[in-house]
Amino acid sequence: MAKNTNIRISLPAVCFVWQIAMIILFGVFVRYNEESDTRWIEHRRRKNISTNLENDFYYRYPSFQDVHVMIFVGFGFLMTFLKRYSFGGVGFNFLIAAFGIQWALLMQGWFHYLDDDGKIKIGVENLINADFCVAGCLIAYGACLGKVSPVQLMVLTLFGVTLFAVEEYIILELLHAKDPGGSMVIHTFGAYYGLTISWVLYRPMLSQSKHLQGSVYHSDVFAMIGTLFLWMYWPSFNSAIADHGDGQHRAVINTYLALAASVLTTFAISSISQKHGKLDMVHIQNATLAGGVAMGTASEFMITPYGSLIVGFCSSIISTFGYIFLTPFMEKTLKIQDTCGIHNLHAMPGVIGGIVGAITAASASESVYGQEGWYFMLCNFPGGILKLPIWGDPADANCFDDEVYWEVPEDEDENMLSSHPNMNHARGMPDA
Amino acid sequence: MAKNTNIRISLPAVCFVWQIAMIILFGVFVRYNEESDTRWIEHRRRKNISTNLENDFYYRYPSFQDVHVMIFVGFGFLMTFLKRYSFGGVGFNFLIAAFGIQWALLMQGWFHYLDDDGKIKIGVENLINADFCVAGCLIAYGACLGKVSPVQLMVLTLFGVTLFAVEEYIILELLHAKDPGGSMVIHTFGAYYGLTISWVLYRPMLSQSKHLQGSVYHSDVFAMIGTLFLWMYWPSFNSAIADHGDGQHRAVINTYLALAASVLTTFAISSISQKHGKLDMVHIQNATLAGGVAMGTASEFMITPYGSLIVGFCSSIISTFGYIFLTPFMEKTLKIQDTCGIHNLHAMPGVIGGIVGAITAASASESVYGQEGWYFMLCNFPGGILKLPIWGDPADANCFDDEVYWEVPEDEDENMLSSHPNMNHARGMPDA
Amino acid sequence: MAKNTNIRISLPAVCFVWQIAMIILFGVFVRYNEESDTRWIEHRRRKNISTNLENDFYYRYPSFQDVHVMIFVGFGFLMTFLKRYSFGGVGFNFLIAAFGIQWALLMQGWFHYLDDDGKIKIGVENLINADFCVAGCLIAYGACLGKVSPVQLMVLTLFGVTLFAVEEYIILELLHAKDPGGSMVIHTFGAYYGLTISWVLYRPMLSQSKHLQGSVYHSDVFAMIGTLFLWMYWPSFNSAIADHGDGQHRAVINTYLALAASVLTTFAISSISQKHGKLDMVHIQNATLAGGVAMGTASEFMITPYGSLIVGFCSSIISTFGYIFLTPFMEKTLKIQDTCGIHNLHAMPGVIGGIVGAITAASASESVYGQEGWYFMLCNFPGGILKLPIWGDPADANCFDDEVYWEVPEDEDENMLSSHPNMNHARGMPDA
Repeated sequence: MAKNTNIRISLPAVCFVWQIAMIILFGVFVRYNEESDTRWIEHRRRKNISTNLENDFYYRYPSFQDVHVMIFVGFGFLMTFLKRYSFGGVGFNFLIAAFGIQWALLMQGWFHYLDDDGKIKIGVENLINADFCVAGCLIAYGACLGKVSPVQLMVLTLFGVTLFAVEEYIILELLHAKDPGGSMVIHTFGAYYGLTISWVLYRPMLSQSKHLQGSVYHSDVFAMIGTLFLWMYWPSFNSAIADHGDGQHRAVINTYLALAASVLTTFAISSISQKHGKLDMVHIQNATLAGGVAMGTASEFMITPYGSLIVGFCSSIISTFGYIFLTPFMEKTLKIQDTCGIHNLHAMPGVIGGIVGAITAASASESVYGQEGWYFMLCNFPGGILKLPIWGDPADANCFDDEVYWEVPEDEDENMLSSHPNMNHARGMPDA
Repeated sequence: MAKNTNIRISLPAVCFVWQIAMIILFGVFVRYNEESDTRWIEHRRRKNISTNLENDFYYRYPSFQDVHVMIFVGFGFLMTFLKRYSFGGVGFNFLIAAFGIQWALLMQGWFHYLDDDGKIKIGVENLINADFCVAGCLIAYGACLGKVSPVQLMVLTLFGVTLFAVEEYIILELLHAKDPGGSMVIHTFGAYYGLTISWVLYRPMLSQSKHLQGSVYHSDVFAMIGTLFLWMYWPSFNSAIADHGDGQHRAVINTYLALAASVLTTFAISSISQKHGKLDMVHIQNATLAGGVAMGTASEFMITPYGSLIVGFCSSIISTFGYIFLTPFMEKTLKIQDTCGIHNLHAMPGVIGGIVGAITAASASESVYGQEGWYFMLCNFPGGILKLPIWGDPADANCFDDEVYWEVPEDEDENMLSSHPNMNHARGMPDA
Repeated sequence: MAKNTNIRISLPAVCFVWQIAMIILFGVFVRYNEESDTRWIEHRRRKNISTNLENDFYYRYPSFQDVHVMIFVGFGFLMTFLKRYSFGGVGFNFLIAAFGIQWALLMQGWFHYLDDDGKIKIGVENLINADFCVAGCLIAYGACLGKVSPVQLMVLTLFGVTLFAVEEYIILELLHAKDPGGSMVIHTFGAYYGLTISWVLYRPMLSQSKHLQGSVYHSDVFAMIGTLFLWMYWPSFNSAIADHGDGQHRAVINTYLALAASVLTTFAISSISQKHGKLDMVHIQNATLAGGVAMGTASEFMITPYGSLIVGFCSSIISTFGYIFLTPFMEKTLKIQDTCGIHNLHAMPGVIGGIVGAITAASASESVYGQEGWYFMLCNFPGGILKLPIWGDPADANCFDDEVYWEVPEDEDENMLSSHPNMNHARGMPDA
């Protein structure tokens, strides 16, 4: 029964091999573009650009930094809510995002940014796109949180980034859809990718670690750090690669308004759904963000301020109801165990976003319909690979427990726990 | 004695009705302005603007995002210091700020931004102003923290934003005072609004929840997140709507220096006031910010760098002494229970800021004198409404307790608590 | 044995006297520069500058704010990892940074920014440089964390900033080395300064507070806030004062890539070095940042993207091995007690950075070789002063304990601790 969770060989091996591969591939393929190269001065002269400020850096760097915070602090801290998996939440998020951005620069580079000389020329826009690409994988991680090993996560990220670059190419380049904030390209894709993997890795006896699959008081406060940084910086996410000038400006306003409407709606549904009207932290931490997801595709469109409010309003209703009704249903009936409820936060609002975008633009419709099935097919094969018994993933009884992969300090509370025999049930014994 | 704190009908009803009202009013009144509209390109051509960078977005968006962080993470986490009211601190802050910014866009729009066609045209400056307006309500929340229901807070915010728009109109448009960082308009107003409400809602038996009206070790560390983000981004707050060019530049320098002086002064007074010279977290979390408040009005003026240091120095002395002497006095004698001590952080430094501004500019003096009485009068009537017994506010013994409005996870520590009969006094029984 | 840690006179005295000295010196010396002064408009006209955007404020303010967050939240929260010294970590960091930036504006001003009229003219670049200067002192604090009094820290900062301005002048102005991200000037200097002081203040009986020299679960999560904000914003740190245009752009890309490689490498070495391959939070919190340190000198150079990956890769290997082997060796053999392991995070990666810079630029070589000995000599005398028995520093048995300098709230857990006689050993008795 007890699985071998020793990753002392496999994790360093994967990290080293892939990092060295990145160095070699970057050596062969990646160069600065003309705005980040010393040739910028000639480029300025040639193009008659009057000021250094016209370097794309000054248009996009503040937005890039906001997106960067969303990826590492936003997603990372949102996943610290589990009582004994906060290290894994924020730590593995850090690992796979740092790998993913390197791989994404290459994959997206080959598809979109290849120059005549066979080199990928990078600048600040590539950094933003790499962060976007990684967001898809972090969403997928949300469904698997606590149930997979870091080695599996590295594989999940390798395939996830690859598939992302492919589907992005199809949707944006072949179907000519617009999706600056990635409702479809990032959120719906990431969610179905994660759900497929979670479905393949279904754990029938997961209830053995039920006592760990919840929060404690302060872990919920930590998760609010993640929620708020995602919520505050989402206008930057949806505007970071929008058109200069009014495009970026409008994308910010639309996203800001959709998110504001999401908060009130989430509080309303959360309160109405509970005995005594008490609010549920799971809803507040997640469904308040649905407006940002749903505004991704149409962020730059002339959707009007009140249109944005309506998008936020509707998506959060659906998202909160998803947490209440759909997550338990999916686990019982569809055998999909979705730790963070990404179906409610990313899949459904992402589909709404695609539909809103299609209606607003009266275009891009094909890219929306039938995507789910297509995503599902695509995502199946990495799931199968991850099922092999070689990855050091935890047994059902050891899920959601940092003890498996981290040196965990012995809290003084725990000293006490062990001095009270009747408290020992509360924590699985460490594997030492 | 036990009050009915069930908000299962009232909170969803208020949230839904007000959100739908926002959608309708936005539909009737709110449009993009010419810099966030696709008409921007014609506008550029017509005004002979050479670059997209002249779109106000690029002047103001980085500052806007900093202000946004102050509102949601700064104020939100500053209010997590109570041992069992961290959910309420950061969560209700989130709710009322998200509602407040919508209502503020309308109210400030009607007063300041109404176009010839009867529409409010919004851009990034409106978003900043909406955040400013909400800051006043969040300051007021600080006085009532732990003692009011979320429904009351929604009402408090509705009236607060309305009054704010009125007083801002009087001070800035009729009296022609300048107040870019809002010493008077935001901080003094917000503080007296909150204190008035707290005075109207005076709870004579509040000592019944005295065991909950303090911090624990980690809740104080959470609160430092709020303090630091407020402290770091305050230069953006005071410069966000200052004049382009040297105006914004100088406002940043002045605020940065005033805040630096505040820190040393606060540590000094805090240490000197305690037995053994030990520092008090309440002072460090709050009075270090007084320089930012006091520099609000004069931030853009040529007050000189050493002038800014003096402002920070003086305001923090007064603020820290306020926490030591004035807060207990106000509770005992004036019957004003001020949970976060907003009188010391916002009211007094705000008045200093107004006076400094008046001296520096040798103008705007009338707007300062007698404001307190005027604010007090204005703020009285929403206080009376909030006293009605219909809002689901907690009984005196249940104040400062998240159990009342939130599903609180059962910490393992609590399991233990309940297994030790002599520990049960430490936490009021949940209402389940 | 029991030392007198009462700082009720000394701390307020030092804070007041130094703050008042700052006010006087600023009054005599510091003025706005032409971009932050109302003269900006004439300056624009005279220099034929077409737009307010050419004010350096718009080139540098977003980077400044990121650096500011690194200094106060990044360094501050990185030092909250100790189980009972989180107040001291984030609180004293706040105090000495706020003092240090004022003193740095003066010291750097006298060396670099003195105008013909004998005044220091400041703008946003000075604010960034002051933050940089303070970073050196905060690094030094990392070696002494938990073992010194706040009064000692104020003295450490006074001398640290002074020495920094001198060595910066020698390296940048006399030796004409380039070091925009400060590998040598900030990190190597700060580390050897701190290590020297820690060596002078060696505590042979420090094991008496061994039970406090570790983390608890949630203090490690707090420290990750610091790590991530440092990691995310490091591209801004290394580009903040780089050349406008492609210089800033390239510095961001190089730093971003070096940091990404650092993460994978750190996870690999951390896992391989532990029984069962479990990850160690100390490594993840620190060595993941080595790439940013090592990229400081060469950040602006045409080091190529894969060159940056290699820098990150190598520096994190050395840094993580440092934590595993070197820190214990230094404590036992060299009598240097380095609480945060700054030798591994700042000294060694900083030297790598200097070498990389020298190789890339084929210059600046003299500034690298022999620096360590020189730093060591320079840093000795403040160490001697700090050894005097007048500073209120804690006894060996009271190190790493917030009870010494802070009013610490009594946690409910502690109530319990005291009711279990066998738990009393877990916490030193407070000095009340």
